[in-house]
Amino acid sequence: MRLYNSDPSSASYRVRIALNLKGVSAELLCLQLRDGAQRDPAYAAINPQCLVPTLTLDDGTALTQSLAIIDYLDETHPEPPFLPRDARLRAWVRAVALAIACDIHPLNNLRVLQYLEHDLKQDADAVKTWYAHWIRLGFDALERQLVSPPVAGNFCCGDAPGLADICLVPQVRNARRYQIDLSAYPRIVAIDAACAELDAFRRANPA
Amino acid sequence: MRLYNSDPSSASYRVRIALNLKGVSAELLCLQLRDGAQRDPAYAAINPQCLVPTLTLDDGTALTQSLAIIDYLDETHPEPPFLPRDARLRAWVRAVALAIACDIHPLNNLRVLQYLEHDLKQDADAVKTWYAHWIRLGFDALERQLVSPPVAGNFCCGDAPGLADICLVPQVRNARRYQIDLSAYPRIVAIDAACAELDAFRRANPA
Repeated sequence: MRLYNSDPSSASYRVRIALNLKGVSAELLCLQLRDGAQRDPAYAAINPQCLVPTLTLDDGTALTQSLAIIDYLDETHPEPPFLPRDARLRAWVRAVALAIACDIHPLNNLRVLQYLEHDLKQDADAVKTWYAHWIRLGFDALERQLVSPPVAGNFCCGDAPGLADICLVPQVRNARRYQIDLSAYPRIVAIDAACAELDAFRRANPA
Repeated sequence: MRLYNSDPSSASYRVRIALNLKGVSAELLCLQLRDGAQRDPAYAAINPQCLVPTLTLDDGTALTQSLAIIDYLDETHPEPPFLPRDARLRAWVRAVALAIACDIHPLNNLRVLQYLEHDLKQDADAVKTWYAHWIRLGFDALERQLVSPPVAGNFCCGDAPGLADICLVPQVRNARRYQIDLSAYPRIVAIDAACAELDAFRRANPA
């Protein structure tokens, strides 16, 4: 397997965590997004969205979209599971992951920040305010959800990391890179700290 | 079951399609998003993100995030399946759905358009250009993916609608509402037309 990824991409970071948790090794190929490497025709041929990550399998199949890749890894390598067994708990964990993957992260993607800067002529302060706005709005809701999870524990849902933690940790890193005050989110910070103690999360961290 | 939803919300539209395809009935409660009904404290208590849709179960459990709700419906009502059985095919279908749900739809959400207008002081033309930009960028890639699906057929993947179609149809409706020229996307238009022939899709359409 090969993982086309990049250091600043939090979607890539999710997949690296997932591979580590499953104990699956993949050759890592790093794309320089600021140089536009994701728009190279050879890469566009395997990922028409020109986004990272892409996981290519040994038969040549190219899997795109981080959450689809993570579900694939979970279905093909069931241990340790990324989702609880109960359907309602699974839905809760998926909802936390999607609240990050759909409603925070895409708004702060590099291409969106570049559109704000180049097309809408926004200055650095306005871009930073935009970035912080969507993280705070998302984290305000997430903190409320995570303080009363359906299963108590050190992680998002119980005492083992899963899909929600895999999405949360890279988003927390993004928040810190933009110097966002996280003091209003003690539960999010505590879950991030619990993950940081695990080798699978530490090795995936680009820092 | 109760579905808190709204007519203009394409995430709500996805869940209505999914309920219809599964033959599951739910009481529909319609929120007026432009009036801020989603920020009402009673609604925020069941959905801290203050977004639609939310599906509440008969035991009071509140499920949020359209894709998590759709996965829940698929897991609890397996027929007809929303995903193929093969893990690689499932990943392909999920990737199409996520390309819409993560990389097109969130950028054109009401709250984002309102931020562009009120906070970034963008005029109606600039907002419309923004809206069209993310749909075109997304549809350019999707069309390339959908013209060579891993399983040929009238729908995104094969001859029955699934998760990808459930996400595609509401996004096509949004594109049409914004008068975006779809002539460059014949495969997307053909899949949308195939879905429009099905009662489950027709009944879910707010128009």
